[in-house]
Amino acid sequence: MATKDDRKKSRRDAPLRDVLRVPGGERIDLTAYDASAIPAGPADKATGLAATAALAPRLADLHERLYASSTAGDRRRLLLVLQGMDTSGKGGTVKHVIGLFNPSGCRIRAFKAPTQEERNHPFLWRITKALPQPGEIGIFDRSHYEDVLIARVRDLVPRARLERRYDQINHFEKSLADDGVTVVKVFLHLSYEEQRNRLLERLDTPEKHWKFNPGDIEERSVWPAYQEAYEVALERCTTAEAPWYLVPADRKWYRNWAISRLLLEHLEGLDPKYPPGDFDVEECRRRLLLT
Amino acid sequence: MATKDDRKKSRRDAPLRDVLRVPGGERIDLTAYDASAIPAGPADKATGLAATAALAPRLADLHERLYASSTAGDRRRLLLVLQGMDTSGKGGTVKHVIGLFNPSGCRIRAFKAPTQEERNHPFLWRITKALPQPGEIGIFDRSHYEDVLIARVRDLVPRARLERRYDQINHFEKSLADDGVTVVKVFLHLSYEEQRNRLLERLDTPEKHWKFNPGDIEERSVWPAYQEAYEVALERCTTAEAPWYLVPADRKWYRNWAISRLLLEHLEGLDPKYPPGDFDVEECRRRLLLT
Repeated sequence: MATKDDRKKSRRDAPLRDVLRVPGGERIDLTAYDASAIPAGPADKATGLAATAALAPRLADLHERLYASSTAGDRRRLLLVLQGMDTSGKGGTVKHVIGLFNPSGCRIRAFKAPTQEERNHPFLWRITKALPQPGEIGIFDRSHYEDVLIARVRDLVPRARLERRYDQINHFEKSLADDGVTVVKVFLHLSYEEQRNRLLERLDTPEKHWKFNPGDIEERSVWPAYQEAYEVALERCTTAEAPWYLVPADRKWYRNWAISRLLLEHLEGLDPKYPPGDFDVEECRRRLLLT
Repeated sequence: MATKDDRKKSRRDAPLRDVLRVPGGERIDLTAYDASAIPAGPADKATGLAATAALAPRLADLHERLYASSTAGDRRRLLLVLQGMDTSGKGGTVKHVIGLFNPSGCRIRAFKAPTQEERNHPFLWRITKALPQPGEIGIFDRSHYEDVLIARVRDLVPRARLERRYDQINHFEKSLADDGVTVVKVFLHLSYEEQRNRLLERLDTPEKHWKFNPGDIEERSVWPAYQEAYEVALERCTTAEAPWYLVPADRKWYRNWAISRLLLEHLEGLDPKYPPGDFDVEECRRRLLLT
Protein backbone atom coordinates (compact mmCIF):
# COMPACT_ATOMS: atom_id res chain seq x y z
CA MET A 1 0.00 0.00 0.00
CA ALA A 2 1.35 3.39 -0.95
CA THR A 3 2.01 5.60 2.04
CA LYS A 4 1.60 9.35 1.96
CA ASP A 5 5.38 9.62 1.76
CA ASP A 6 5.45 7.26 -1.25
CA ARG A 7 2.90 9.38 -3.04
CA LYS A 8 4.87 12.50 -2.23
CA LYS A 9 8.02 10.88 -3.55
CA SER A 10 6.43 9.69 -6.78
CA ARG A 11 5.06 13.18 -7.27
CA ARG A 12 8.55 14.59 -6.86
CA ASP A 13 9.93 12.17 -9.44
CA ALA A 14 7.17 12.79 -11.97
CA PRO A 15 7.79 15.17 -14.84
CA LEU A 16 6.87 18.67 -13.75
CA ARG A 17 4.47 18.94 -16.67
CA ASP A 18 2.40 16.14 -15.14
CA VAL A 19 2.43 17.83 -11.75
CA LEU A 20 1.41 21.30 -12.98
CA ARG A 21 -0.93 20.39 -15.85
CA VAL A 22 -4.46 21.59 -15.22
CA PRO A 23 -7.13 18.87 -15.44
CA GLY A 24 -9.07 19.79 -18.56
CA GLY A 25 -12.83 19.76 -18.84
CA GLU A 26 -13.52 20.18 -15.16
CA ARG A 27 -14.06 23.37 -13.26
CA ILE A 28 -11.01 24.64 -11.41
CA ASP A 29 -11.33 26.32 -8.05
CA LEU A 30 -8.32 28.59 -7.91
CA THR A 31 -8.82 29.24 -4.21
CA ALA A 32 -7.91 25.58 -3.69
CA TYR A 33 -4.43 26.20 -5.12
CA ASP A 34 -1.81 27.72 -2.84
CA ALA A 35 0.04 30.41 -4.78
CA SER A 36 3.11 29.94 -2.58
CA ALA A 37 3.16 26.16 -2.91
CA ILE A 38 6.20 24.15 -3.95
CA PRO A 39 4.49 21.15 -5.54
CA ALA A 40 7.72 19.64 -6.86
CA GLY A 41 11.37 20.47 -7.28
CA PRO A 42 13.75 22.48 -5.12
CA ALA A 43 12.38 23.27 -1.68
CA ASP A 44 14.11 26.53 -0.89
CA LYS A 45 15.33 29.67 -2.60
CA ALA A 46 19.07 28.95 -2.61
CA THR A 47 18.55 25.48 -4.04
CA GLY A 48 16.05 26.84 -6.54
CA LEU A 49 18.34 29.56 -7.85
CA ALA A 50 21.15 27.04 -8.26
CA ALA A 51 18.83 24.55 -9.96
CA THR A 52 17.62 27.17 -12.44
CA ALA A 53 21.18 28.24 -13.24
CA ALA A 54 22.08 24.59 -13.75
CA LEU A 55 19.33 24.25 -16.39
CA ALA A 56 20.71 27.10 -18.49
CA PRO A 57 23.31 25.19 -20.55
CA ARG A 58 20.82 22.42 -21.38
CA LEU A 59 18.17 24.91 -22.42
CA ALA A 60 20.64 26.80 -24.62
CA ASP A 61 21.85 23.56 -26.20
CA LEU A 62 18.35 22.29 -26.99
CA HIS A 63 17.37 25.68 -28.40
CA GLU A 64 20.41 25.71 -30.69
CA ARG A 65 19.60 22.19 -31.88
CA LEU A 66 16.01 23.20 -32.58
CA TYR A 67 17.19 26.22 -34.53
CA ALA A 68 19.81 24.22 -36.41
CA SER A 69 17.20 21.63 -37.30
CA SER A 70 14.93 24.31 -38.75
CA THR A 71 17.63 25.20 -41.29
CA ALA A 72 17.13 21.70 -42.70
CA GLY A 73 13.35 22.06 -42.99
CA ASP A 74 12.17 21.07 -39.50
CA ARG A 75 9.14 23.27 -38.83
CA ARG A 76 8.96 22.69 -35.10
CA ARG A 77 9.04 25.56 -32.66
CA LEU A 78 7.83 26.37 -29.19
CA LEU A 79 5.44 29.03 -28.00
CA LEU A 80 5.35 30.04 -24.36
CA VAL A 81 2.13 31.82 -23.43
CA LEU A 82 2.31 33.79 -20.18
CA GLN A 83 -0.85 34.88 -18.45
CA GLY A 84 -1.47 36.14 -14.95
CA MET A 85 -2.69 39.08 -12.93
CA ASP A 86 -0.71 42.34 -12.75
CA THR A 87 2.62 41.84 -10.95
CA SER A 88 2.37 38.05 -11.28
CA GLY A 89 5.74 38.04 -13.01
CA LYS A 90 5.21 37.84 -16.76
CA GLY A 91 7.92 40.43 -17.39
CA GLY A 92 10.17 38.87 -14.75
CA THR A 93 9.85 35.51 -16.46
CA VAL A 94 10.95 36.97 -19.77
CA LYS A 95 13.94 38.63 -18.11
CA HIS A 96 15.09 35.70 -15.99
CA VAL A 97 13.97 32.62 -17.92
CA ILE A 98 14.03 33.74 -21.54
CA GLY A 99 17.29 35.51 -20.71
CA LEU A 100 18.82 32.02 -20.51
CA PHE A 101 18.29 31.49 -24.26
CA ASN A 102 20.09 32.90 -27.28
CA PRO A 103 18.14 36.12 -27.94
CA SER A 104 18.49 35.75 -31.71
CA GLY A 105 16.18 32.71 -31.66
CA CYS A 106 13.52 34.24 -29.42
CA ARG A 107 10.50 36.13 -30.70
CA ILE A 108 8.94 38.07 -27.86
CA ARG A 109 5.69 39.95 -28.05
CA ALA A 110 3.88 41.80 -25.27
CA PHE A 111 0.22 42.33 -26.06
CA LYS A 112 -1.37 45.51 -24.79
CA ALA A 113 -4.89 46.82 -25.30
CA PRO A 114 -5.58 46.32 -29.00
CA THR A 115 -5.05 49.24 -31.37
CA GLN A 116 -7.80 50.50 -33.63
CA GLU A 117 -6.36 48.48 -36.53
CA GLU A 118 -6.23 45.33 -34.38
CA ARG A 119 -9.82 45.85 -33.27
CA ASN A 120 -10.85 46.02 -36.92
CA HIS A 121 -9.64 42.43 -37.36
CA PRO A 122 -10.71 39.15 -35.72
CA PHE A 123 -9.13 38.84 -32.28
CA LEU A 124 -6.65 36.17 -33.43
CA TRP A 125 -5.25 38.35 -36.23
CA ARG A 126 -2.60 40.12 -34.21
CA ILE A 127 -1.72 36.84 -32.50
CA THR A 128 -1.06 35.08 -35.79
CA LYS A 129 1.30 37.84 -36.89
CA ALA A 130 3.45 37.39 -33.77
CA LEU A 131 3.94 33.61 -33.97
CA PRO A 132 7.46 32.15 -33.82
CA GLN A 133 9.15 30.90 -36.97
CA PRO A 134 10.47 27.33 -37.20
CA GLY A 135 13.34 26.81 -34.77
CA GLU A 136 12.39 29.78 -32.63
CA ILE A 137 11.01 30.10 -29.14
CA GLY A 138 8.08 32.47 -29.15
CA ILE A 139 7.02 34.24 -25.98
CA PHE A 140 3.66 35.92 -25.52
CA ASP A 141 3.44 38.28 -22.54
CA ARG A 142 -0.38 38.23 -22.44
CA SER A 143 -2.06 36.74 -25.47
CA HIS A 144 -5.35 35.87 -27.15
CA TYR A 145 -6.56 34.85 -23.67
CA GLU A 146 -7.04 38.52 -22.84
CA ASP A 147 -9.98 38.27 -25.24
CA VAL A 148 -11.72 35.90 -22.83
CA LEU A 149 -10.33 37.44 -19.64
CA ILE A 150 -10.58 41.22 -19.56
CA ALA A 151 -13.19 40.90 -22.31
CA ARG A 152 -15.30 38.74 -19.95
CA VAL A 153 -14.70 40.77 -16.80
CA ARG A 154 -15.38 44.10 -18.50
CA ASP A 155 -18.14 42.88 -20.85
CA LEU A 156 -16.19 44.17 -23.85
CA VAL A 157 -18.10 41.97 -26.31
CA PRO A 158 -21.60 40.43 -26.35
CA ARG A 159 -21.73 37.26 -24.28
CA ALA A 160 -22.57 35.00 -27.25
CA ARG A 161 -19.51 36.22 -29.11
CA LEU A 162 -17.38 35.74 -26.01
CA GLU A 163 -18.61 32.18 -25.56
CA ARG A 164 -17.66 31.28 -29.13
CA ARG A 165 -14.11 32.41 -28.52
CA TYR A 166 -13.18 29.44 -26.33
CA ASP A 167 -13.79 27.02 -29.19
CA GLN A 168 -12.11 29.38 -31.63
CA ILE A 169 -9.05 29.42 -29.40
CA ASN A 170 -9.02 25.63 -29.16
CA HIS A 171 -9.27 25.26 -32.95
CA PHE A 172 -6.55 27.86 -33.42
CA GLU A 173 -4.20 26.16 -30.98
CA LYS A 174 -4.87 22.78 -32.56
CA SER A 175 -3.91 24.22 -35.92
CA LEU A 176 -0.69 25.51 -34.38
CA ALA A 177 0.09 22.06 -32.99
CA ASP A 178 -0.64 20.54 -36.40
CA ASP A 179 1.89 22.93 -37.87
CA GLY A 180 4.65 21.93 -35.45
CA VAL A 181 4.15 24.49 -32.69
CA THR A 182 4.50 23.17 -29.15
CA VAL A 183 2.24 25.48 -27.16
CA VAL A 184 3.14 25.82 -23.48
CA LYS A 185 0.53 27.88 -21.67
CA VAL A 186 1.48 29.07 -18.21
CA PHE A 187 -0.90 30.64 -15.74
CA LEU A 188 1.09 32.51 -13.10
CA HIS A 189 -1.02 31.94 -10.02
CA LEU A 190 -0.55 34.89 -7.64
CA SER A 191 -2.35 35.49 -4.37
CA TYR A 192 -4.36 38.62 -3.65
CA GLU A 193 -2.07 39.37 -0.69
CA GLU A 194 1.14 38.97 -2.67
CA GLN A 195 -0.16 41.33 -5.35
CA ARG A 196 -0.73 43.94 -2.63
CA ASN A 197 2.83 43.41 -1.39
CA ARG A 198 4.25 43.85 -4.86
CA LEU A 199 2.24 46.98 -5.57
CA LEU A 200 3.34 48.41 -2.21
CA GLU A 201 6.93 47.64 -3.08
CA ARG A 202 6.54 49.56 -6.32
CA LEU A 203 5.17 52.51 -4.38
CA ASP A 204 8.02 52.35 -1.91
CA THR A 205 10.72 52.33 -4.59
CA PRO A 206 11.02 55.51 -6.70
CA GLU A 207 12.91 53.51 -9.39
CA LYS A 208 9.75 51.40 -9.78
CA HIS A 209 7.21 54.23 -9.93
CA TRP A 210 7.16 54.03 -13.71
CA LYS A 211 5.69 50.53 -13.38
CA PHE A 212 2.93 51.70 -11.06
CA ASN A 213 -0.47 52.69 -12.31
CA PRO A 214 -3.03 53.94 -9.77
CA GLY A 215 -5.64 52.14 -11.87
CA ASP A 216 -4.08 48.88 -10.64
CA ILE A 217 -5.67 49.56 -7.24
CA GLU A 218 -9.17 49.80 -8.72
CA GLU A 219 -8.55 46.61 -10.69
CA ARG A 220 -8.25 44.76 -7.40
CA SER A 221 -11.94 45.32 -6.77
CA VAL A 222 -12.72 42.95 -9.65
CA TRP A 223 -10.15 40.35 -8.53
CA PRO A 224 -12.83 37.64 -7.98
CA ALA A 225 -14.27 38.23 -11.46
CA TYR A 226 -10.77 37.80 -12.96
CA GLN A 227 -10.20 34.62 -10.98
CA GLU A 228 -13.48 33.25 -12.30
CA ALA A 229 -12.59 34.24 -15.86
CA TYR A 230 -9.28 32.38 -15.45
CA GLU A 231 -11.10 29.35 -14.05
CA VAL A 232 -13.33 29.23 -17.11
CA ALA A 233 -10.43 29.67 -19.51
CA LEU A 234 -8.35 26.97 -17.79
CA GLU A 235 -11.29 24.58 -17.83
CA ARG A 236 -12.39 25.13 -21.41
CA CYS A 237 -9.01 25.60 -23.06
CA THR A 238 -6.95 22.81 -21.56
CA THR A 239 -6.73 20.43 -24.49
CA ALA A 240 -4.51 17.50 -25.33
CA GLU A 241 -2.67 19.70 -27.85
CA ALA A 242 -2.29 22.74 -25.64
CA PRO A 243 -2.80 22.19 -21.91
CA TRP A 244 -2.54 24.90 -19.29
CA TYR A 245 0.09 24.69 -16.58
CA LEU A 246 -0.63 26.32 -13.24
CA VAL A 247 2.59 27.73 -11.78
CA PRO A 248 2.48 29.02 -8.20
CA ALA A 249 3.90 32.52 -8.57
CA ASP A 250 4.14 34.03 -5.11
CA ARG A 251 7.77 32.93 -4.94
CA LYS A 252 9.73 34.40 -7.82
CA TRP A 253 12.57 31.89 -7.58
CA TYR A 254 10.10 29.02 -7.77
CA ARG A 255 8.26 30.54 -10.71
CA ASN A 256 11.55 30.90 -12.60
CA TRP A 257 12.64 27.36 -11.83
CA ALA A 258 9.26 25.85 -12.70
CA ILE A 259 8.97 27.60 -16.07
CA SER A 260 12.59 26.80 -16.95
CA ARG A 261 11.93 23.18 -16.07
CA LEU A 262 8.67 23.08 -18.08
CA LEU A 263 10.49 24.47 -21.10
CA LEU A 264 13.27 21.92 -20.65
CA GLU A 265 10.84 19.01 -20.53
CA HIS A 266 9.07 20.18 -23.67
CA LEU A 267 12.31 20.77 -25.54
CA GLU A 268 13.62 17.38 -24.45
CA GLY A 269 10.38 15.90 -25.71
CA LEU A 270 11.09 17.40 -29.12
CA ASP A 271 14.63 15.96 -29.02
CA PRO A 272 15.89 18.15 -31.87
CA LYS A 273 19.01 16.98 -33.72
CA TYR A 274 21.75 18.87 -35.48
CA PRO A 275 21.17 18.20 -39.17
CA PRO A 276 23.94 16.40 -41.05
CA GLY A 277 25.81 18.40 -43.64
CA ASP A 278 24.95 17.68 -47.27
CA PHE A 279 28.50 18.24 -48.50
CA ASP A 280 31.73 16.27 -48.72
CA VAL A 281 33.70 17.29 -45.64
CA GLU A 282 37.08 16.08 -46.89
CA GLU A 283 36.70 17.74 -50.25
CA CYS A 284 35.63 21.01 -48.65
CA ARG A 285 38.61 20.88 -46.29
CA ARG A 286 41.01 20.40 -49.20
CA ARG A 287 39.52 23.27 -51.17
CA LEU A 288 39.48 25.51 -48.13
CA LEU A 289 43.14 24.84 -47.38
CA LEU A 290 43.99 25.97 -50.91
CA THR A 291 42.54 29.42 -50.25
CA MET B 1 57.42 65.83 -24.87
CA ALA B 2 55.01 62.91 -24.89
CA THR B 3 56.79 59.58 -24.91
CA LYS B 4 55.46 56.54 -26.71
CA ASP B 5 54.44 55.18 -23.31
CA ASP B 6 52.51 58.38 -22.55
CA ARG B 7 50.66 58.15 -25.81
CA LYS B 8 49.85 54.51 -25.16
CA LYS B 9 48.60 55.39 -21.71
CA SER B 10 46.40 58.24 -22.89
CA ARG B 11 45.00 55.92 -25.53
CA ARG B 12 44.15 53.38 -22.86
CA ASP B 13 42.33 56.02 -20.80
CA ALA B 14 40.39 57.46 -23.73
CA PRO B 15 36.80 56.39 -24.29
CA LEU B 16 36.80 53.31 -26.47
CA ARG B 17 34.53 55.08 -28.95
CA ASP B 18 37.35 57.54 -29.62
CA VAL B 19 39.85 54.72 -30.07
CA LEU B 20 37.75 52.63 -32.44
CA ARG B 21 35.94 55.34 -34.40
CA VAL B 22 36.84 55.28 -38.07
CA PRO B 23 38.16 58.59 -39.43
CA GLY B 24 35.42 59.77 -41.78
CA GLY B 25 35.97 61.18 -45.23
CA GLU B 26 39.34 59.57 -45.78
CA ARG B 27 40.08 56.28 -47.43
CA ILE B 28 40.67 53.41 -45.02
CA ASP B 29 43.25 50.76 -45.79
CA LEU B 30 41.96 47.74 -43.94
CA THR B 31 45.23 45.88 -44.41
CA ALA B 32 46.75 48.47 -42.09
CA TYR B 33 44.49 47.34 -39.24
CA ASP B 34 45.50 44.23 -37.30
CA ALA B 35 42.39 42.07 -36.80
CA SER B 36 43.91 40.54 -33.67
CA ALA B 37 44.90 43.86 -32.15
CA ILE B 38 44.00 44.94 -28.62
CA PRO B 39 43.93 48.71 -29.11
CA ALA B 40 42.57 49.43 -25.62
CA GLY B 41 41.13 47.64 -22.61
CA PRO B 42 41.89 44.24 -21.12
CA ALA B 43 45.07 42.69 -22.46
CA ASP B 44 44.30 38.99 -22.14
CA LYS B 45 41.38 36.61 -22.35
CA ALA B 46 40.83 35.93 -18.66
CA THR B 47 40.83 39.65 -17.85
CA GLY B 48 38.62 40.32 -20.85
CA LEU B 49 35.98 37.78 -19.92
CA ALA B 50 35.87 39.11 -16.37
CA ALA B 51 35.67 42.70 -17.61
CA THR B 52 32.75 41.87 -19.92
CA ALA B 53 30.89 40.08 -17.14
CA ALA B 54 31.48 43.08 -14.89
CA LEU B 55 29.78 45.36 -17.44
CA ALA B 56 26.57 43.30 -17.47
CA PRO B 57 24.79 44.86 -14.45
CA ARG B 58 25.53 48.41 -15.67
CA LEU B 59 24.28 47.60 -19.17
CA ALA B 60 21.10 46.04 -17.80
CA ASP B 61 20.51 49.00 -15.49
CA LEU B 62 20.97 51.59 -18.25
CA HIS B 63 18.72 49.60 -20.58
CA GLU B 64 15.98 49.46 -17.96
CA ARG B 65 16.27 53.21 -17.37
CA LEU B 66 16.03 53.86 -21.10
CA TYR B 67 12.96 51.67 -21.36
CA ALA B 68 11.37 53.23 -18.28
CA SER B 69 12.01 56.67 -19.69
CA SER B 70 10.25 55.75 -22.93
CA THR B 71 7.05 55.08 -20.97
CA ALA B 72 7.06 58.79 -20.12
CA GLY B 73 7.48 59.91 -23.73
CA ASP B 74 11.26 59.76 -24.20
CA ARG B 75 11.76 58.68 -27.81
CA ARG B 76 15.43 57.73 -27.50
CA ARG B 77 16.65 54.29 -28.42
CA LEU B 78 19.81 52.61 -29.63
CA LEU B 79 20.50 50.71 -32.81
CA LEU B 80 23.51 48.42 -33.06
CA VAL B 81 24.42 47.63 -36.66
CA LEU B 82 26.68 44.59 -37.06
CA GLN B 83 28.57 44.05 -40.29
CA GLY B 84 31.46 41.79 -41.12
CA MET B 85 32.55 38.91 -43.27
CA ASP B 86 31.17 35.40 -42.76
CA THR B 87 32.28 33.95 -39.40
CA SER B 88 33.33 37.40 -38.14
CA GLY B 89 31.03 36.94 -35.15
CA LYS B 90 27.79 38.79 -35.81
CA GLY B 91 25.75 35.92 -34.39
CA GLY B 92 28.21 35.40 -31.55
CA THR B 93 27.87 39.06 -30.61
CA VAL B 94 24.10 38.77 -30.40
CA LYS B 95 24.41 35.68 -28.23
CA HIS B 96 27.12 36.91 -25.87
CA VAL B 97 26.64 40.69 -25.79
CA ILE B 98 22.94 41.16 -26.41
CA GLY B 99 22.39 38.21 -24.08
CA LEU B 100 23.45 40.58 -21.28
CA PHE B 101 20.33 42.70 -21.79
CA ASN B 102 16.69 42.10 -20.89
CA PRO B 103 15.38 40.29 -24.00
CA SER B 104 11.98 41.99 -23.79
CA GLY B 105 13.57 45.33 -24.67
CA CYS B 106 15.68 44.06 -27.58
CA ARG B 107 14.50 44.02 -31.17
CA ILE B 108 16.77 41.76 -33.20
CA ARG B 109 16.65 41.35 -36.93
CA ALA B 110 18.94 39.29 -39.15
CA PHE B 111 18.82 40.41 -42.76
CA LYS B 112 19.21 37.73 -45.41
CA ALA B 113 19.07 38.03 -49.18
CA PRO B 114 15.99 40.17 -49.84
CA THR B 115 12.71 38.46 -50.65
CA GLN B 116 10.78 39.24 -53.81
CA GLU B 117 8.53 41.61 -51.88
CA GLU B 118 11.54 43.37 -50.38
CA ARG B 119 13.15 43.72 -53.80
CA ASN B 120 9.99 45.40 -55.05
CA HIS B 121 10.56 48.19 -52.53
CA PRO B 122 13.41 50.69 -52.12
CA PHE B 123 16.32 49.05 -50.31
CA LEU B 124 15.66 50.94 -47.07
CA TRP B 125 12.05 49.74 -46.84
CA ARG B 126 12.73 46.51 -44.97
CA ILE B 127 15.24 48.31 -42.76
CA THR B 128 12.69 50.91 -41.68
CA LYS B 129 10.23 48.19 -40.69
CA ALA B 130 12.77 46.59 -38.34
CA LEU B 131 13.78 49.71 -36.39
CA PRO B 132 13.66 49.68 -32.60
CA GLN B 133 10.84 51.42 -30.75
CA PRO B 134 11.56 54.10 -28.12
CA GLY B 135 13.36 52.58 -25.12
CA GLU B 136 14.52 49.53 -27.04
CA ILE B 137 17.89 48.35 -28.21
CA GLY B 138 17.69 47.33 -31.84
CA ILE B 139 20.21 44.93 -33.31
CA PHE B 140 20.79 44.46 -37.03
CA ASP B 141 22.74 41.33 -37.97
CA ARG B 142 23.66 42.64 -41.44
CA SER B 143 21.77 45.70 -42.57
CA HIS B 144 21.24 48.23 -45.36
CA TYR B 145 25.02 48.12 -45.82
CA GLU B 146 24.62 44.84 -47.67
CA ASP B 147 23.14 47.02 -50.41
CA VAL B 148 26.53 48.67 -50.90
CA LEU B 149 28.63 45.59 -50.04
CA ILE B 150 27.45 42.43 -51.78
CA ALA B 151 25.61 44.72 -54.22
CA ARG B 152 28.96 46.32 -55.12
CA VAL B 153 31.00 43.13 -55.18
CA ARG B 154 28.45 41.23 -57.23
CA ASP B 155 27.31 44.14 -59.41
CA LEU B 156 23.72 43.60 -58.35
CA VAL B 157 22.65 47.09 -59.39
CA PRO B 158 23.88 49.60 -61.97
CA ARG B 159 26.90 51.54 -60.69
CA ALA B 160 25.14 54.93 -60.77
CA ARG B 161 22.36 53.57 -58.56
CA LEU B 162 24.89 52.01 -56.22
CA GLU B 163 26.79 55.27 -55.90
CA ARG B 164 23.63 57.15 -54.92
CA ARG B 165 23.03 54.73 -52.07
CA TYR B 166 25.87 56.06 -49.90
CA ASP B 167 24.22 59.45 -49.66
CA GLN B 168 20.82 57.85 -49.23
CA ILE B 169 22.18 55.88 -46.31
CA ASN B 170 23.70 58.99 -44.75
CA HIS B 171 20.43 60.90 -45.07
CA PHE B 172 18.52 57.97 -43.66
CA GLU B 173 20.83 57.61 -40.66
CA LYS B 174 20.69 61.35 -40.04
CA SER B 175 16.91 61.15 -39.97
CA LEU B 176 17.19 58.35 -37.42
CA ALA B 177 19.49 60.44 -35.25
CA ASP B 178 17.06 63.35 -35.52
CA ASP B 179 14.32 61.05 -34.26
CA GLY B 180 16.31 59.98 -31.18
CA VAL B 181 18.04 56.87 -32.47
CA THR B 182 21.67 56.47 -31.40
CA VAL B 183 23.16 54.48 -34.27
CA VAL B 184 26.24 52.40 -33.33
CA LYS B 185 27.74 50.82 -36.43
CA VAL B 186 30.29 48.09 -35.80
CA PHE B 187 32.51 46.58 -38.45
CA LEU B 188 33.85 43.26 -37.22
CA HIS B 189 37.31 43.24 -38.72
CA LEU B 190 38.37 39.63 -39.31
CA SER B 191 41.55 38.42 -40.99
CA TYR B 192 41.55 36.17 -44.04
CA GLU B 193 43.50 33.56 -42.06
CA GLU B 194 41.16 33.59 -39.09
CA GLN B 195 38.17 33.11 -41.39
CA ARG B 196 39.87 30.01 -42.76
CA ASN B 197 40.44 28.73 -39.22
CA ARG B 198 36.82 29.26 -38.32
CA LEU B 199 35.51 27.58 -41.45
CA LEU B 200 37.86 24.64 -40.80
CA GLU B 201 36.55 24.42 -37.27
CA ARG B 202 33.01 24.21 -38.59
CA LEU B 203 34.07 21.40 -40.89
CA ASP B 204 35.78 19.57 -38.05
CA THR B 205 32.74 19.73 -35.76
CA PRO B 206 29.65 17.77 -36.88
CA GLU B 207 27.48 19.90 -34.57
CA LYS B 208 28.52 22.92 -36.62
CA HIS B 209 27.97 21.45 -40.09
CA TRP B 210 24.58 23.17 -40.29
CA LYS B 211 26.40 26.49 -40.21
CA PHE B 212 28.71 25.52 -43.06
CA ASN B 213 27.95 26.36 -46.63
CA PRO B 214 30.40 25.15 -49.32
CA GLY B 215 29.66 28.42 -51.11
CA ASP B 216 31.56 30.16 -48.29
CA ILE B 217 34.77 28.78 -49.81
CA GLU B 218 34.08 30.38 -53.21
CA GLU B 219 33.24 33.66 -51.48
CA ARG B 220 36.84 33.79 -50.26
CA SER B 221 38.00 34.34 -53.83
CA VAL B 222 36.35 37.76 -53.77
CA TRP B 223 37.75 38.65 -50.33
CA PRO B 224 39.73 41.63 -51.67
CA ALA B 225 36.65 43.01 -53.42
CA TYR B 226 34.70 42.78 -50.18
CA GLN B 227 37.47 44.50 -48.25
CA GLU B 228 37.43 47.30 -50.79
CA ALA B 229 33.65 47.58 -50.58
CA TYR B 230 33.97 47.87 -46.79
CA GLU B 231 36.68 50.49 -47.17
CA VAL B 232 34.40 52.60 -49.36
CA ALA B 233 31.43 52.19 -47.03
CA LEU B 234 33.48 53.07 -43.94
CA GLU B 235 34.90 56.11 -45.68
CA ARG B 236 31.70 57.47 -47.12
CA CYS B 237 29.28 56.57 -44.34
CA THR B 238 31.17 57.64 -41.25
CA THR B 239 29.25 60.76 -40.29
CA ALA B 240 29.03 62.84 -37.14
CA GLU B 241 25.59 61.33 -36.49
CA ALA B 242 26.47 57.72 -37.21
CA PRO B 243 30.18 56.89 -37.22
CA TRP B 244 31.59 53.45 -37.89
CA TYR B 245 33.57 51.64 -35.22
CA LEU B 246 36.21 49.17 -36.33
CA VAL B 247 36.38 46.28 -33.85
CA PRO B 248 39.25 43.79 -34.22
CA ALA B 249 37.38 40.48 -34.36
CA ASP B 250 39.98 37.72 -34.52
CA ARG B 251 39.74 37.34 -30.74
CA LYS B 252 36.16 36.58 -29.72
CA TRP B 253 36.65 37.65 -26.11
CA TYR B 254 37.99 41.01 -27.25
CA ARG B 255 35.17 41.54 -29.73
CA ASN B 256 32.62 40.86 -26.97
CA TRP B 257 34.31 43.19 -24.52
CA ALA B 258 34.76 45.96 -27.07
CA ILE B 259 31.14 45.93 -28.24
CA SER B 260 29.84 45.72 -24.67
CA ARG B 261 32.04 48.67 -23.78
CA LEU B 262 30.92 50.67 -26.85
CA LEU B 263 27.29 50.09 -25.92
CA LEU B 264 27.99 51.10 -22.35
CA GLU B 265 29.62 54.35 -23.40
CA HIS B 266 26.72 55.24 -25.68
CA LEU B 267 24.10 54.37 -23.08
CA GLU B 268 25.99 56.36 -20.45
CA GLY B 269 26.05 59.24 -22.90
CA LEU B 270 22.26 59.09 -23.08
CA ASP B 271 22.09 59.05 -19.25
CA PRO B 272 18.45 57.90 -19.16
CA LYS B 273 16.50 58.57 -15.95
CA TYR B 274 13.65 56.72 -14.32
CA PRO B 275 10.63 58.96 -14.80
CA PRO B 276 8.94 60.30 -11.66
CA GLY B 277 5.47 58.99 -10.89
CA ASP B 278 2.58 61.38 -11.59
CA PHE B 279 0.51 60.15 -8.66
CA ASP B 280 0.29 60.81 -4.93
CA VAL B 281 2.33 58.01 -3.35
CA GLU B 282 0.89 58.39 0.16
CA GLU B 283 -2.69 58.46 -1.07
CA CYS B 284 -2.11 55.39 -3.26
CA ARG B 285 -0.53 53.53 -0.35
CA ARG B 286 -3.54 54.29 1.88
CA ARG B 287 -6.01 53.15 -0.76
CA LEU B 288 -3.99 50.02 -1.51
CA LEU B 289 -3.86 49.03 2.15
CA LEU B 290 -7.67 49.20 2.26
CA THR B 291 -7.93 46.49 -0.43
